Amino acid sequence: MQRAVLLWQCPDQPGIIARLSGLLFEHTGNILSSDQYTSDPEKGRFFIRIEFVFDEDRYTREHLETALADAAQELEAEWGLHYAGRVLRLAIAVSRYDHCLVDLLYRVRSGEMRVDVPLVVSNHESARQLVESHGIPFHYVPVTAESRAAQEARLLTLLRDASDFLVLARYMQVLTDGFLRSYGKDVINIHHSFLPSFKGADPYRQAYDRGVKIIGATAHFATTDLDEGPIIEQVVGPVSHKDSVDDLRQKGRELERTALANAIRAYIEHRVIRYRNKTIILG
Amino acid sequence: MQRAVLLWQCPDQPGIIARLSGLLFEHTGNILSSDQYTSDPEKGRFFIRIEFVFDEDRYTREHLETALADAAQELEAEWGLHYAGRVLRLAIAVSRYDHCLVDLLYRVRSGEMRVDVPLVVSNHESARQLVESHGIPFHYVPVTAESRAAQEARLLTLLRDASDFLVLARYMQVLTDGFLRSYGKDVINIHHSFLPSFKGADPYRQAYDRGVKIIGATAHFATTDLDEGPIIEQVVGPVSHKDSVDDLRQKGRELERTALANAIRAYIEHRVIRYRNKTIILG
Amino acid sequence: MQRAVLLWQCPDQPGIIARLSGLLFEHTGNILSSDQYTSDPEKGRFFIRIEFVFDEDRYTREHLETALADAAQELEAEWGLHYAGRVLRLAIAVSRYDHCLVDLLYRVRSGEMRVDVPLVVSNHESARQLVESHGIPFHYVPVTAESRAAQEARLLTLLRDASDFLVLARYMQVLTDGFLRSYGKDVINIHHSFLPSFKGADPYRQAYDRGVKIIGATAHFATTDLDEGPIIEQVVGPVSHKDSVDDLRQKGRELERTALANAIRAYIEHRVIRYRNKTIILG
Amino acid sequence: MQRAVLLWQCPDQPGIIARLSGLLFEHTGNILSSDQYTSDPEKGRFFIRIEFVFDEDRYTREHLETALADAAQELEAEWGLHYAGRVLRLAIAVSRYDHCLVDLLYRVRSGEMRVDVPLVVSNHESARQLVESHGIPFHYVPVTAESRAAQEARLLTLLRDASDFLVLARYMQVLTDGFLRSYGKDVINIHHSFLPSFKGADPYRQAYDRGVKIIGATAHFATTDLDEGPIIEQVVGPVSHKDSVDDLRQKGRELERTALANAIRAYIEHRVIRYRNKTIILG
Repeated sequence: MQRAVLLWQCPDQPGIIARLSGLLFEHTGNILSSDQYTSDPEKGRFFIRIEFVFDEDRYTREHLETALADAAQELEAEWGLHYAGRVLRLAIAVSRYDHCLVDLLYRVRSGEMRVDVPLVVSNHESARQLVESHGIPFHYVPVTAESRAAQEARLLTLLRDASDFLVLARYMQVLTDGFLRSYGKDVINIHHSFLPSFKGADPYRQAYDRGVKIIGATAHFATTDLDEGPIIEQVVGPVSHKDSVDDLRQKGRELERTALANAIRAYIEHRVIRYRNKTIILG
Repeated sequence: MQRAVLLWQCPDQPGIIARLSGLLFEHTGNILSSDQYTSDPEKGRFFIRIEFVFDEDRYTREHLETALADAAQELEAEWGLHYAGRVLRLAIAVSRYDHCLVDLLYRVRSGEMRVDVPLVVSNHESARQLVESHGIPFHYVPVTAESRAAQEARLLTLLRDASDFLVLARYMQVLTDGFLRSYGKDVINIHHSFLPSFKGADPYRQAYDRGVKIIGATAHFATTDLDEGPIIEQVVGPVSHKDSVDDLRQKGRELERTALANAIRAYIEHRVIRYRNKTIILG
Repeated sequence: MQRAVLLWQCPDQPGIIARLSGLLFEHTGNILSSDQYTSDPEKGRFFIRIEFVFDEDRYTREHLETALADAAQELEAEWGLHYAGRVLRLAIAVSRYDHCLVDLLYRVRSGEMRVDVPLVVSNHESARQLVESHGIPFHYVPVTAESRAAQEARLLTLLRDASDFLVLARYMQVLTDGFLRSYGKDVINIHHSFLPSFKGADPYRQAYDRGVKIIGATAHFATTDLDEGPIIEQVVGPVSHKDSVDDLRQKGRELERTALANAIRAYIEHRVIRYRNKTIILG
Repeated sequence: MQRAVLLWQCPDQPGIIARLSGLLFEHTGNILSSDQYTSDPEKGRFFIRIEFVFDEDRYTREHLETALADAAQELEAEWGLHYAGRVLRLAIAVSRYDHCLVDLLYRVRSGEMRVDVPLVVSNHESARQLVESHGIPFHYVPVTAESRAAQEARLLTLLRDASDFLVLARYMQVLTDGFLRSYGKDVINIHHSFLPSFKGADPYRQAYDRGVKIIGATAHFATTDLDEGPIIEQVVGPVSHKDSVDDLRQKGRELERTALANAIRAYIEHRVIRYRNKTIILG
């Protein structure tokens, strides 16, 4: 039995679940879990995640995909079918702060996060030893104001075919609109504040100056609007007047790595649907 | 268009969702949200909550219920169909601590919690004025060791027909097995600890003596096994060495009222399925 | 024995604690708890809260206060001495949303929050019955664009002598600089967002539009800089794509009343020191 | 200027703070922060943590320590004076689960946790490579029912002189009373449940069977009463009916490493005082 996840969104209308569940049933599918949501104010957009098993000996993947494609065309759906066993390839970009990188590599190696890491890129050399000790290729791609275009071209060459998605694990360089379009796959960023508070540079300094009592971290899809992409996960923790800016940075590192790991886990379990500037996280 | 919620559980087998969603579609139903879960280790039990609208002008409730009853018999299902507009009747039992009662009455009056409160019973007179100021009948039903049987008989007379479920909002009397069976409807209790820690009497004293750093409150279905019924909701909060037993009680009151309100809200939105000694909370 | 709390701040220098604790000891004081903090980057500002008992039969309050005043002059301190038994008078301003008001009145009546409420003012009539049922005078002070000056004058007359501090419990009118100066006492506001996110109008709508995964509430001292006053307390809770704007408002009400109650409790226990645009919360 | 922390506890009486702060002032001390607490119901036990700087050129450590020892004898105090710059030596014991170990080693190497790790002991070989890659000696000390005495003797030889405290980072062997007495220093354990819930073996299985909605982890001092030692830190997180026992284990790992790291951080910053079966955590 093959296990798979169907992620599907389309304009709402009666009978979609009957249609999809009937289609799966006809192809030997048994639904293990399904979570469905119809947005209200946004004029009826239908979202569903269905996890199911089916018997590949009786119907091939092609049979199933063809049937789904037909339904999708009719219902004007965007969809993806993700087979268990196919492990996503996660490329990581990092700058000097390596706490998220260390955390991700540990989760991958310990088997907790089922993902392949084909390469790590950085504009600093500092993480090379750590990355290579995990048997993962490390690419140093420095960047200056003048070299940005060349650097992004190099990144594209490295990443485009080798990865299914890219995580900016405290990568402190802005990626251009051109890069995001050319890469064409999802890019997840960790921002070190509770967005939309403290956009931009040095958010812990901003949080310190404002005297907040709680700080946070936000994992979101990177878009050309810096710090404005759809939010996937936010994590917060308490702080006090005793905390210096450096204390906030240290406490924040915990939040960052947790938020980023949660977001990646949801993503690779195919629980995240993007719609406009938001995410739907399905159970 | 009539809105309704279907709660359904049965032994798992392929095609249940197709069957149910097809059945609803045939009866003009449009699914607004559905959340489904199949338990794994417990040998495939299927649980689903479906929120939908249907056109009562084309099919009556009886049509729909007959079709569901047929499917339920075939699939050995337990199920309930809950029409929007039908407001549940919540009876409240309370003893001396009235913080949960006050909170519930405010939520009901402000319209936040859509429920009718036909009566409040208590083994103390102290809450009478508060309850009656909301226009709700208050029944003083005292209890002593000798009068327990008579008291429970009186409670049954008051509650059985007048209420759809009963909430023990810090009601400090144990209800007997006989009462629970005779009442025959759900009873939700708030226990003032993070179960299974600190069962029994004076849990805040126990928590103080143990020196825990976090306390909690637990809303659960009352069963004949005291403090052992299926847990619906738990809420926790931090404490420190500075907190006296009374400080714990005060902080605990916040947790109790939040846990109880969350549990009741989930219950009246028909999100809670009991199965064995656990609950499934569906989205 | 008289119990009291000393709140004290001054430029840092060696020996302050020795000086203050020696002074208290000489006046029969026994310290029950003390919490001290010296800010670092802001060039050594010293803050302390000391809770102590002393024997009024041997030294009068005047003796003690004179000694403290002498030390304060020498050390350039701002300070306050708060005797247990003296209950602060809390005036409440409210508009249409009454959840914080209801919560505060319950806490006061149940004895959990030791404070007197001499009056409630509102620009709406809707809370009159609730307030008067607690035996508290209710003043309806409507406001229009033209009548603002007259209205603030009326508020000043009502509040200045009758209250020790003012809480804006979802009071949706901006108080002018002139009012705050003339009132001359602390004003605590509850803002229905996790500041500095979503300043200004309808923060839950803003939160919904941004698609955040966590919402919050912020209790802060009201200053002439709207939503920019020193933060006393922040409380947050999770939300999801399923939550409508109204769901956020409902969830937010829980956070608001908790944040506001926590802030008031800290304030009346004399745990809050303002310094520049921040608060120091001492244990 | 030398920075130091004084931790002190003694029976309460008037004037202790005046005495200690006067003593420090006489020895050129300037107090940076102090946090004091007097227990109430337990008949007046006085606890204080004072962080201060003093001028070693004018008074030596011996001067200061002699003065403190004199005061301690008089006031029947237990106390410790901890000089900044002296880094504690943390020995780690681990079994098969290495997530806490990995987390601790990263925090140490990144400079976030200022501690030396002179050695790691384990009853499994599996962590050898990881530990040695950090340049830390790894000792494999297997244990069977028969060899327990010999194994504990070996552990004692390895640990007693080489370490200032021992952390059981998911070390799944019970240490005997004899070992704890002979080692004579603090031992911190991480228990993978929200104590006192789910003592003993396989707490995640117990939590799953009970159907709790929140799980936790508890860092506590190890004593001869298994799972009953003074609690230093507890961390909790939400779970649902969807979580299998393995999901609970994975979510629990996050909580365990956070709780353990927080406890160790508090310990090495000299914020933790043990008193009877509880801890006082001072700011």
